[in-house]
Amino acid sequence: AGGVKAGGRSTAAAAHPPWHTLPLKHVIESQQFQPDSLDAIFGVARQMEAVARGSPESRMLAGYNMATLFYEPSTRTRLSFESAMTRLGGAVLTTESAGEYSSAAKGETLEDTIRTIEGYADLIVLRHFQAGSAKKAASAAAVPIINAGDGPGQHPTQALLDVYTIQRELGRLRDFKIGMVGDLSNGRTVRSLAFILAMYSGVKMYFVSPEIVKMKDDIKAHLTEEEVTWEEVDDLREVAHEVDVLYQTRIQKERFQDRPDDYELAKGKYIIDGALMKELQPHAVVMHPLPRVDEITTEVDADPRAAYFRQARNGLYIRMALLKLCLLGH
Amino acid sequence: AGGVKAGGRSTAAAAHPPWHTLPLKHVIESQQFQPDSLDAIFGVARQMEAVARGSPESRMLAGYNMATLFYEPSTRTRLSFESAMTRLGGAVLTTESAGEYSSAAKGETLEDTIRTIEGYADLIVLRHFQAGSAKKAASAAAVPIINAGDGPGQHPTQALLDVYTIQRELGRLRDFKIGMVGDLSNGRTVRSLAFILAMYSGVKMYFVSPEIVKMKDDIKAHLTEEEVTWEEVDDLREVAHEVDVLYQTRIQKERFQDRPDDYELAKGKYIIDGALMKELQPHAVVMHPLPRVDEITTEVDADPRAAYFRQARNGLYIRMALLKLCLLGH
Amino acid sequence: AGGVKAGGRSTAAAAHPPWHTLPLKHVIESQQFQPDSLDAIFGVARQMEAVARGSPESRMLAGYNMATLFYEPSTRTRLSFESAMTRLGGAVLTTESAGEYSSAAKGETLEDTIRTIEGYADLIVLRHFQAGSAKKAASAAAVPIINAGDGPGQHPTQALLDVYTIQRELGRLRDFKIGMVGDLSNGRTVRSLAFILAMYSGVKMYFVSPEIVKMKDDIKAHLTEEEVTWEEVDDLREVAHEVDVLYQTRIQKERFQDRPDDYELAKGKYIIDGALMKELQPHAVVMHPLPRVDEITTEVDADPRAAYFRQARNGLYIRMALLKLCLLGH
Repeated sequence: AGGVKAGGRSTAAAAHPPWHTLPLKHVIESQQFQPDSLDAIFGVARQMEAVARGSPESRMLAGYNMATLFYEPSTRTRLSFESAMTRLGGAVLTTESAGEYSSAAKGETLEDTIRTIEGYADLIVLRHFQAGSAKKAASAAAVPIINAGDGPGQHPTQALLDVYTIQRELGRLRDFKIGMVGDLSNGRTVRSLAFILAMYSGVKMYFVSPEIVKMKDDIKAHLTEEEVTWEEVDDLREVAHEVDVLYQTRIQKERFQDRPDDYELAKGKYIIDGALMKELQPHAVVMHPLPRVDEITTEVDADPRAAYFRQARNGLYIRMALLKLCLLGH
Repeated sequence: AGGVKAGGRSTAAAAHPPWHTLPLKHVIESQQFQPDSLDAIFGVARQMEAVARGSPESRMLAGYNMATLFYEPSTRTRLSFESAMTRLGGAVLTTESAGEYSSAAKGETLEDTIRTIEGYADLIVLRHFQAGSAKKAASAAAVPIINAGDGPGQHPTQALLDVYTIQRELGRLRDFKIGMVGDLSNGRTVRSLAFILAMYSGVKMYFVSPEIVKMKDDIKAHLTEEEVTWEEVDDLREVAHEVDVLYQTRIQKERFQDRPDDYELAKGKYIIDGALMKELQPHAVVMHPLPRVDEITTEVDADPRAAYFRQARNGLYIRMALLKLCLLGH
Repeated sequence: AGGVKAGGRSTAAAAHPPWHTLPLKHVIESQQFQPDSLDAIFGVARQMEAVARGSPESRMLAGYNMATLFYEPSTRTRLSFESAMTRLGGAVLTTESAGEYSSAAKGETLEDTIRTIEGYADLIVLRHFQAGSAKKAASAAAVPIINAGDGPGQHPTQALLDVYTIQRELGRLRDFKIGMVGDLSNGRTVRSLAFILAMYSGVKMYFVSPEIVKMKDDIKAHLTEEEVTWEEVDDLREVAHEVDVLYQTRIQKERFQDRPDDYELAKGKYIIDGALMKELQPHAVVMHPLPRVDEITTEVDADPRAAYFRQARNGLYIRMALLKLCLLGH
C-alpha cells in the first residue's frame, strides 16, 4: 500500500513465528502485524461496522464458542470481546476472574488449562497478569488464542484499535503528526502505537511528558533506526496547534511518589481542556485508551474532535474482525 | 382505567423527565409510572407469560445485546433479567460483580463507564450501591438504562412485579385491603408499593410492624394527602382476617441491636405460620419479596394462597415486558 | 448387555428414588446409574460427538435455559456444562461464585433459592460445598437438577465421563484390568469409578497407593461382596505391564503433614513418566481426572496412550447427553 516503507516487511517476517501471517492463527503481540495484514484486518473491521441486526452476516459465527479466560478482571475488554462474539451470532463462555480458578490454585500449568478449555471452546481470549502468558498459551493450543493483555507485556487488540481509529478519523496512516502525551514510560499502549506507526512513512511523533515518565530509549532508538522523525517536548501547548492526533494517557500519581509537588506541576501541564482544544486544528482528533480520570476534562466530550468514545467503539469492530479471521480464516 | 384516581397523572407528568412516558426510554424509579403506563406494561407482561418455546415471539430480541452491569452481587435479580433476555432470543453480557471493575478502581466516573459499555450493549441493566446512580447513568446514556436497584434508593422492577402480582392474584388494583408487615421503615419495597397503590382508588392499607421499624412519616403524609385510608397496627392477628393481600417482609436483627429482647418479642408477633393462615380469607394471598428466612414458616408454602414464588416468577414476565418496551419501543 | 452381572440391578433399583430411571429426572449421584441406563447415556454421548456445527441437532435445545449455580468456583466443570448447553443451541445463565450469593448470606435456604431460580431456568447445574446439597435441591425442584459436585459428596458427571472414556478407549467395560493410583482414600473420583465398574464382569482392580491414603474399607468390602477381584499394590512398576487402564490421581502433600519424608518417598513411586510408559502395554491408556501437577510428567503428553485430555473432552459429550436426556426426555 502507498505510504508503507519498503523493505521492512520481508526481513521482519523471516524471524516471525507462523501466526504472523494471514489467515490469523493467533493474536499475540503488536509486532506480529505488518502493513498488509493491518490493511486486511482494517478492511474486515470496516465491514463489521456495517453488520446489520438480523442480517446473515450477524450470524456468521453461529455455532462457534468463545471462552474469555480472564485471570484478572478487565470488564471493559471482556465485554468488548463478548459483544463482538454475540454480534456475529457466536456463543460465549465467560470467566470474570479466573484468578480464583481452582485448577490454577492446585498448581496446574497454563498449558494444561488451555488444553482442557480448548476441548470446550473454539477460541480462547486470554487475559493474564504475567508477561509472555499468551505466547505460552498459543504454544500449547490447538484453537486460536487472542491475547487480551498479559500484564506488563502486550495488549495487541488495543494497539490495533488505536491504529484503526487513526485511519478512520484521518483517512490515512501516513504523512501526519501525532502527539503522545502523559506517561510514555510505562504505558504499553503508546509504546505499541509508536512501534506500529514506524512502519508507515511521513509520520512525525512528538513525545509530550514530564521528565520522569519519558518515552524509553529502546523505542526512540528503534524509531531513529527506522528513520522516523520524533521530538521530545515538555509542554503540551507547544505542539497542540501542530498535531493531527493528540493521544492522551493518564499520569499515575504513584510514579511521583517521592515528589508530590512535581506531580501536581506535571499534571497541570498535560491536561486537555476547553482552552487547549482552541489551539487544536479543526480536523485534529483527541484519543485516549480510557479509562480517563481528569487528564481530559469533561467539557471536551461534546467537541466533535473528541474521538475517545468512538475509539472504544472501534475496539468492537476490530475484535469482530479478529474473531472472524481467526475462526473462519478469511 | 376504572378505579384510577382522576387528576393525578397530568400534574405529575408535567414535572417528570422524558423517560416518564411510553414508549419507555429508561426504567429508573417507581414514581415514573402512572396507571396508564402500568396498564400498558402489565398488558405486555401478560403476553410474555404466553411466549412459547420456539415461537417467533421467543426470538423477538434476537440480535440485541443486554449488559448486566452489577456493582454489587444480586444473583436473583441478575438471573431474572438474563433469563428474560434469553427467553426473547437476546444475548447477554454479564458482570457478576463489577465492584472489582478495574476502571472504577482507577477512578473512572460512572458516566464514562456507561458511555463505553453502550458501545457494546443495546441496553444496560445497572445495579449499584449508591442511591441516584441509575439516574446519573441515564443522563449519560444513549441506550436504555434499567435500574436493578441503586443502594438505599430505588428498585423499580421489584415494585412493578409486586403490583403486577396483586393484579394477577386479585384480578384488580382497586377496592382491596393490604397488610404490609415487618420492617416498614427500611424496606424500599413496601415504600414503593404504598406509593404506587396510592394512585388507585379504594385501597386500604394496614401497616403492621414493631414500633422501631414503623412506616416513615413521608409516606404516611403522602397517603393522607392522596386520601388513602391507612392504619397502623401492632399485631398481625388483628388484621389477618381483614386483608386481601398480606405483604410480609423480613425484620433484620441488626435494627434492634441495643435491645435483643425486643427483637425476639417483635419477631414472634409478625410470623406467618399455619395458624395464621387459618385466619386468612380463602381468596387472600401472601406475598414476600424474598429471600425469606423464618418470617413465613415453610408449612405455608404448600398453601395455594402462598403467592411468593409466583411473585418471583412474575419478575421474569415484568422484565421481559420492560426489555421489549425499551428495545422495540412498543 | 453382555458382561453385565445378573441380579444386581433389580434389587438395587427397588431402593432407589424415582430419578433412578430413564428418562432422567435429576442427576444426583453415581449410584443412581445401572448398566442399562449407562448404556443409554453413552449411546447418546456417542451421538453428541457427531453433532456438526450448523446442523439441526446443534439447535435441539434452542429456547431452553440452563443456570449454573456454583457456590464455589470450578471453572473447568462450569465451562464444560456451559459449552455443552451452547453446543446444543441452549442459553446459559451463569454464576461464577454464588458463595457471595446475597440471598444465601441473608439466610435463605437452598430449597428457597432453587424454587426461585427454577422460575428463570429450565434446568439447574448445582455446585455446592456441602455433601447432600444436590439431593436437597432435587427434593425442592420442579426442574431437573444436575449435581456438578457437592463437596466431599458426589460428582456424578465426572464418574460418568470416566466410565465413558474407558468404553471409548478400550471398546468395552468388562474383562479388563485397571490400576487406580495415588490418593485412593480421599478421591471421590476413584471411589465412584470402583463402585460403577463393580457392576461389570471380569474387571480386575489394582489399588496402587501409599499406606496412608489406601482405598477405604467400605469400597473394598463392597467389591468383595460383588465378587470383584481386587488387589492392593505398593509399587506402580509391579502392575504397569499388567493393566489396560492406569487411572492416576494426585497425592496431596497435605495428607502427609506429619511426615514430609514419607511424602517425597511416596510421590516418587507413583509418578507416570517416560520410563514407566515403556512398561505399559501398547493398547493400554493413561487417565487422570485433572488438574495434574507432576504425577504425570509432560513428556507423556505426546504418547497416544495418554488419554487424559480426551477424557476431559468426553466430559463435554457426557454433559451434552445428560442435558438432552433431562430436558427432552429421550
